[in-house]
Amino acid sequence: MKLTGTFLDEISHDIPHQNWGIKEWDTDFQHMKRMGIDTVILIRCGYKNWLTYPSEVLQQEEGAYEPPVDLVRLFLDLSEKHGMAFYFGLYDSGKYWWAQGDFQREVALNLRVIDEVWERYGSSPVFKGWYICQEVSRKTAGIIDLYRQLGLHCKKVSGGLPTLISPYIDGQKAIMASEAELTKTDAVSLQEHEAEWDEIFAGIREAVDIVAFQDGHVDYHQLADYFAVNKRLADRHGLRCWTNAESFDRDMPIKFLPIKWEKLRLKLEAARAAGLEKAITFEFSHFMSPQSAYPQAGHLYNRYQEYRNEH
Amino acid sequence: MKLTGTFLDEISHDIPHQNWGIKEWDTDFQHMKRMGIDTVILIRCGYKNWLTYPSEVLQQEEGAYEPPVDLVRLFLDLSEKHGMAFYFGLYDSGKYWWAQGDFQREVALNLRVIDEVWERYGSSPVFKGWYICQEVSRKTAGIIDLYRQLGLHCKKVSGGLPTLISPYIDGQKAIMASEAELTKTDAVSLQEHEAEWDEIFAGIREAVDIVAFQDGHVDYHQLADYFAVNKRLADRHGLRCWTNAESFDRDMPIKFLPIKWEKLRLKLEAARAAGLEKAITFEFSHFMSPQSAYPQAGHLYNRYQEYRNEH
Amino acid sequence: MKLTGTFLDEISHDIPHQNWGIKEWDTDFQHMKRMGIDTVILIRCGYKNWLTYPSEVLQQEEGAYEPPVDLVRLFLDLSEKHGMAFYFGLYDSGKYWWAQGDFQREVALNLRVIDEVWERYGSSPVFKGWYICQEVSRKTAGIIDLYRQLGLHCKKVSGGLPTLISPYIDGQKAIMASEAELTKTDAVSLQEHEAEWDEIFAGIREAVDIVAFQDGHVDYHQLADYFAVNKRLADRHGLRCWTNAESFDRDMPIKFLPIKWEKLRLKLEAARAAGLEKAITFEFSHFMSPQSAYPQAGHLYNRYQEYRNEH
Repeated sequence: MKLTGTFLDEISHDIPHQNWGIKEWDTDFQHMKRMGIDTVILIRCGYKNWLTYPSEVLQQEEGAYEPPVDLVRLFLDLSEKHGMAFYFGLYDSGKYWWAQGDFQREVALNLRVIDEVWERYGSSPVFKGWYICQEVSRKTAGIIDLYRQLGLHCKKVSGGLPTLISPYIDGQKAIMASEAELTKTDAVSLQEHEAEWDEIFAGIREAVDIVAFQDGHVDYHQLADYFAVNKRLADRHGLRCWTNAESFDRDMPIKFLPIKWEKLRLKLEAARAAGLEKAITFEFSHFMSPQSAYPQAGHLYNRYQEYRNEH
Repeated sequence: MKLTGTFLDEISHDIPHQNWGIKEWDTDFQHMKRMGIDTVILIRCGYKNWLTYPSEVLQQEEGAYEPPVDLVRLFLDLSEKHGMAFYFGLYDSGKYWWAQGDFQREVALNLRVIDEVWERYGSSPVFKGWYICQEVSRKTAGIIDLYRQLGLHCKKVSGGLPTLISPYIDGQKAIMASEAELTKTDAVSLQEHEAEWDEIFAGIREAVDIVAFQDGHVDYHQLADYFAVNKRLADRHGLRCWTNAESFDRDMPIKFLPIKWEKLRLKLEAARAAGLEKAITFEFSHFMSPQSAYPQAGHLYNRYQEYRNEH
Repeated sequence: MKLTGTFLDEISHDIPHQNWGIKEWDTDFQHMKRMGIDTVILIRCGYKNWLTYPSEVLQQEEGAYEPPVDLVRLFLDLSEKHGMAFYFGLYDSGKYWWAQGDFQREVALNLRVIDEVWERYGSSPVFKGWYICQEVSRKTAGIIDLYRQLGLHCKKVSGGLPTLISPYIDGQKAIMASEAELTKTDAVSLQEHEAEWDEIFAGIREAVDIVAFQDGHVDYHQLADYFAVNKRLADRHGLRCWTNAESFDRDMPIKFLPIKWEKLRLKLEAARAAGLEKAITFEFSHFMSPQSAYPQAGHLYNRYQEYRNEH
């Protein structure tokens, strides 16, 4: 199972920024290319007040800050230069879609963001898809409606470009990065997971094309079962099933550094055994890049390349 | 708003040590110089049992350990070599000035440290000021008296050299580094902040010359209001008002790595808009230096230098 | 007091993996050699489901994963190439020897691991000892029996090769890495420590040859007392007394980065003053190696080498 896609973690939620300029990003796309990456996915175009592009909608409506550079333009240009497909991640308010939030406002803002973005960047030949960035693990109130409305609008304005979501499993490692603990005891059961996602998939079909579950929240010996359930549900409801192979380590007290190669290999092999279509990772630039601020990432890149050449 | 000063975080309270020798420190002062730094401020000369210089007072009174090198001498020499002003940070016992401590002992020890230090190092032409290192955010019991006694004594022995304090705002990010959380809910209000610091400034005038509030404990959209209050209060009581622009990121679970450039830029621009006199940072060597153990720091240096050249 | 031994932290419990290949390990042994290391100690051959060598016992009994490379073979080969003695660390289930576990299963598994390992690797001329990896600080139920059974069996199969344990002191810094705090208040007293370890040592004599207490869980000013007690107890019961000088810093919120050189020096000098026989460290490759992912480690190496050349 080869990694052929990566998220671009700009702007970051819980992973410290590398402060790269244009030159470093260009170099990073070269490194990705050499590792076989053909798809890059902007994790989100904005988070709270921080933006990747100078959105008028979000500056006016949310008081978001004007960014120093237009990263969406930069990533589109680099994708074109290096021959990659670009997926655009929507806006995450960090509040409206939470329990006490104004859920419909998250949708309304994003509908306008989708229009704005498509008008500005839709002519790029490498704009190939959308990423609906609100990540959930359970049938959170309103999430079906949000995925449905946003997915349909993305597809409508863009002539049917594919839409992607990347949920996580509410497993024993589903812990906030700002919590000290590494595991919890009230994890979901496989049966609950299957029942809830059966209902969610039923509600979002035709609005969401691809699901790529994050693979880091359950124990390694549980992966086969969860991958099988996820694939079966996706097939049943006509979604394509990718895996989001996390390249950082959830088992360590420093949250987060690159994963041990053996663990990533084990997850990729479990995904292959389950017949998943494509593997993307969160994410290359911090956790697998030879120029990452974490030198373990460059060694992980080397280990992965050895594996890739052998298989 | 240009950064023209930095703290020297020796000895460190909560940031891991880089284990530099004389050669690395010399190189670092060169890097600082190239970035426009003209002032270096020793964060503290001792903390608990750890010392930056072989203080007889603190070894006898507190059982402090004799340090492997005399960093005060080294930093004075490098300041002279590279044309910088050096501010000397006082001793922090880490206990006496806390709630249950023997507050007056903190003062008494430091009065003797001031005498000892001025006798040893006062002849250096680059010894240009004092930093009173007990950092508070509120009108903690005894703090006015401590600032007053120590500030007056510093000025008296040194012929009136300026004294600096760097308080923090008791904002939503005022969290201990050893706590897992990133924010709290019981933050101070702008009105409480103004009332308490009005009283503190009234009590320390003529003993403290410069105040440089840390800029990292409130949300970015609150900076304008807090900077305006701090400036107004400083003007009212005859203090000079600098900003201490933190170059590490308080929003991330790893405590602490270099800040995202966009955030630092935003804070510097808010300080300029408020008319603050000078910007110093905590601190260059871990978070902005090209030779930092955190490679993000070198990229931050590059982003800052681009900004500096443009403005 | 010179460092002449190091643990090899494969596989790691709480320190992120560096993803080194054969080339990096070879280079690391060269770095160790240049620093005077003559002994390497595999911290454990397996932890939970993760293995350093393809153990049939642990794959069958515990469902452990087959590792990508045989690290035991690699480390034996590199030890031979670079002239070092290799100590083999036993298996840590991470559960059976805890309070609610099936203590005797930990022993039974390890008895079979010892046989398997000796049969496979016992002919290596650099296989020089055993490390019993269950680390305790108190007279935990069953620990004497575990040390005794495992130590005797190690010695029996291998013609009496020495056995090593590395307990910790239940001091104020005895905190789990996954906890946010840095200190606790319910530390052991020196008297309790002495009484409990007197009893443990009495129970394990002739089964365990060497004890190397970890030196990082008490405050620096307590080291002299604890080292003296440990040495006296070891002498009384016929154990050799080494020190395990931790080269990472327990006083910082990032758990863990390389220690400040001054602290390591202080600990080594306290060990020398107490007359301890040999100093090993946990561990070279993350915290003292010039090629560590943490650049502070390379600077620590340089500081240590300067010290070593002076003494």
